[in-house]
Amino acid sequence: MESKGRPQRPALPSSRGRFVYPDSMRLSSRLPPGFDPNALSAALARLRAAGRPVLDLTGSNPTRCGFAYPEAEIRAALSAPEVLTYDPDSRGAQTAREAIAAHHGHGLRAEELLLTASTSEGYGLLFKLLGDPGDEVLVPSPSYPLFDWLARLEGLRARPVPSYFHDRWHLDLGALEAAVGPRTRAVVVVNPNNPTGHFLSKPEWHGLTDLCARHGLALLVDEVFVDYGLEAAEDHLPTALADAQPACPVFLLSGLSKVAALPQLKLGWIAVRGPQAATNLEALAFLADQYLSVSSPVQAAVPALLALAPGIRAQVLERLRANLATLDAGLAAHPRLSRLPVEGGWSVLLRRPAVDGDEACALRLLEAASVLVHPGSFFDLPGDGHLVLSLLTPDPLFRDGLGRIFPLL
Amino acid sequence: MESKGRPQRPALPSSRGRFVYPDSMRLSSRLPPGFDPNALSAALARLRAAGRPVLDLTGSNPTRCGFAYPEAEIRAALSAPEVLTYDPDSRGAQTAREAIAAHHGHGLRAEELLLTASTSEGYGLLFKLLGDPGDEVLVPSPSYPLFDWLARLEGLRARPVPSYFHDRWHLDLGALEAAVGPRTRAVVVVNPNNPTGHFLSKPEWHGLTDLCARHGLALLVDEVFVDYGLEAAEDHLPTALADAQPACPVFLLSGLSKVAALPQLKLGWIAVRGPQAATNLEALAFLADQYLSVSSPVQAAVPALLALAPGIRAQVLERLRANLATLDAGLAAHPRLSRLPVEGGWSVLLRRPAVDGDEACALRLLEAASVLVHPGSFFDLPGDGHLVLSLLTPDPLFRDGLGRIFPLL
Repeated sequence: MESKGRPQRPALPSSRGRFVYPDSMRLSSRLPPGFDPNALSAALARLRAAGRPVLDLTGSNPTRCGFAYPEAEIRAALSAPEVLTYDPDSRGAQTAREAIAAHHGHGLRAEELLLTASTSEGYGLLFKLLGDPGDEVLVPSPSYPLFDWLARLEGLRARPVPSYFHDRWHLDLGALEAAVGPRTRAVVVVNPNNPTGHFLSKPEWHGLTDLCARHGLALLVDEVFVDYGLEAAEDHLPTALADAQPACPVFLLSGLSKVAALPQLKLGWIAVRGPQAATNLEALAFLADQYLSVSSPVQAAVPALLALAPGIRAQVLERLRANLATLDAGLAAHPRLSRLPVEGGWSVLLRRPAVDGDEACALRLLEAASVLVHPGSFFDLPGDGHLVLSLLTPDPLFRDGLGRIFPLL
Repeated sequence: MESKGRPQRPALPSSRGRFVYPDSMRLSSRLPPGFDPNALSAALARLRAAGRPVLDLTGSNPTRCGFAYPEAEIRAALSAPEVLTYDPDSRGAQTAREAIAAHHGHGLRAEELLLTASTSEGYGLLFKLLGDPGDEVLVPSPSYPLFDWLARLEGLRARPVPSYFHDRWHLDLGALEAAVGPRTRAVVVVNPNNPTGHFLSKPEWHGLTDLCARHGLALLVDEVFVDYGLEAAEDHLPTALADAQPACPVFLLSGLSKVAALPQLKLGWIAVRGPQAATNLEALAFLADQYLSVSSPVQAAVPALLALAPGIRAQVLERLRANLATLDAGLAAHPRLSRLPVEGGWSVLLRRPAVDGDEACALRLLEAASVLVHPGSFFDLPGDGHLVLSLLTPDPLFRDGLGRIFPLL
C-alpha cells in the first residue's frame, strides 16, 4: 500500500449501506468500498515492476531529497538520558512544549500547547472533540485529500467549499457562510494551503473568524508549511498566532514533519486559543490521555531538534526557490504553459491547455516520458488543466523532468 | 490531569444529550460530562499538595520501579542510522515486524502484523475497522477501565459482561452469548486479564472463538501481560497464537510497554489471524496509513530492544514473585484477609471484609495510613471487598505498605 505521502484517495462509499467485501465479512461503513489503487498508482506500480526507472516530480519526503541533515546531532538528541524514564503528561513534556512555544513566538505559551504523534492524530482528536457522528466540517478546496478520510473515520463528514482563483487564490467566504448548516461544527483551513500555496489574507482571516464566531464554529488552522513563504502577498497572514485574541475558538496544527523536515520522528502539536481555550485544552488533554501516543525519544529531543531546524529549513527554502527559478526559465520557452503564484509551501501548480483530463494527462506523462506528476483533480482543483509538482525535487531531476514533460503538454 | 496509568474513569454521560460545559460551548457528546477527578484522585492531590508523602501501592510504570535497565544499549538502539530516513510503510518497518514475529513464535509471520504507536491506538483502529457509530463490543468484566472510553470515542459502546470467580475466574460464556445483539461486532478479552490476572482456559478459548464464529463477531485478545504468567492453571491458554487457525477473526494486541517494560517508547502491534485475515490486514493498513503514528527511532530499535527484553522481564518476574511471597507471609498473620490467585500479570486482588465500600476503604487507607491502593470498584469487581495492589512496587515499599494497611482492614 502506498503511504499517505502520495494522494491516492480511494473513492468514498457512494451508498449509505455498509460495504460487503468479497469474502462477505461485515466491516465498518467508514471504510472505502475497496482498496484498489487509482489508475495512476496502478500504472506506476506496473512500470516499476517492469524495471522502468521513473522520474518522480511529486516527492514530498524531505529525507529522500538530498538535504544535508546534521546527522550526528539528531541521533544524539534522540538518545538523551530522559528516554529511559516515563513521565506521562497527557499534554506532552513541558520542556518540549516550552521549546515549541518559543519557536512560534507571538506570545504562545507552553500551557496553550498539546503534543500529538502527528498532525493526523491532531485532526483525529479535534474531530472527536468537536463533533458527534453525523456532524460535519467545512474544508475550502482545493486541498490535500486527507481530510475527507480523517473526518469520515471519526464519523464526521468533510464538506468541500470551493475557493476561487483570480490573480491569486481567494477563500469564498460567502460560499462558506452558505454552507453552514445545523450539523456544521468547524472550518478547516491550511495556511499556506497545500497544494495551492495560498496564504490567508488578513481580511480573509478576520472574515473567517467572524463567520465562525457568529455560527458557534471552531476554526482549525493547519500551519505546517507556514515557515515556507515564497511569493506571499503583502496583506498575507504570516500566522494565525498573530491574532492573540481571535473571535472564535482557534486550533492551530503544526509539527516537526515540516518545521524541521523530519517526518519520521512523529511529532505534531495543537495550539489552542480564542474563547473557551481552557475548556478546550482540558478536553483535548482528556482525549490525548486515552492514547498517550508520543514517544519519549522525540519529546526529549524537541529542544535540540528545534535548534537545528532553521539550518534544515534554509536548505529546503533554497531548493524551493531554485526550482521555481528553473521552472520559470523553462516556462519562458513554452508560452502555452504557465504556473500559478506560489505564496508558500512545497508545491507548484502548473497550468496547461486542457486538451485532456488531468488524470489522463498524468498517465500520459508517466507512460510516454516516465515522469510522475500529480493531476490537479487529486486535490479537487476545479476543471482540468492543472498538474501539481513538488518543489522539493533535487535539482538535476527537476530540470530533467521538466525537459521531458514540457514538449508533451 | 492524571495519566491513564491510574484508573480515574470519569462518569460516562448519563443522558443521551450533548453535555453543555459551564462556558456554554458545544462539544462532542463523546466527552465526559466534566473533568473533575474522582474522590480518590482528589484526596491524593490534596495530600500531595500538603506535602504529605504517600506510599503508592498502585504504581504500574515500570521505569519508576527500580529495575536495572541496560541503559547504554537502549539509548544506542534509539539512535541507529535508520532514524534519519523516512520509509513509510503503513504496516510498520519490515525488520521490526520480523523481530516481533520471532518474539511471539507460534509460526507468526511478519506479514500478519501491523505496528501502532500504542495498544490504545490499536484499539482505536480496530473499533474503526469493525464498527459503525452505534455498534457495540462485549467486554468481560472486571477489566481495566480504558475500553469504555476507547470504544465510546469511536462512537461505539463497550458493554460489560460479568465474569465470575469460583476458585478461579471464569468467563461467563452463557452471559456473553445472551448479550450478543444485532449491533454487536466483537468481543474484547485480556489474556491474562488486568487486574484479575485470569488466563483464558483452553475450553474458554474454544467456546469464545466458536461463539464469535457463530455470530459473525471478531475477537480482540489483548496479550500485553502474556509473558508474566505466575500461578496459571494447567489448562490455561498460553497465548491465542497457539491456535493457528481460529474459528473467528482474531486480532491479538501487544506492545513494548509490557513485553520490554518500556512504555515510554510507544510501540504496540496487532497480529491478525483467522478467517478473512488478508482483508482485515489490508483494511487495517488503510486505516493506519491515514495516521502513520509510529516513530522511526523505536521502529529501528525493535530488534535490539526485543533482544534486551528477556533480561528486563526476568527482573520484573522476580519482583512479582517476591512481592507475592511477601504478601502471603503477611496474610498468614491476618486471617481476615486473603488474596485471589494471580494466574498472571502485574496486579493482585486483596480480599477484605466488606465493612465499607471499596472506594471508601481506599480513601480511609489514604487518609489514615498515607497508602494508595485502588478500589476493586474501579475495575468493576463485583460487590465490595476487593483492593487492587501492584506487584511491581519495589520491595521495601511493598512490605512497608502492607504493614501499614493490614491493621486497618
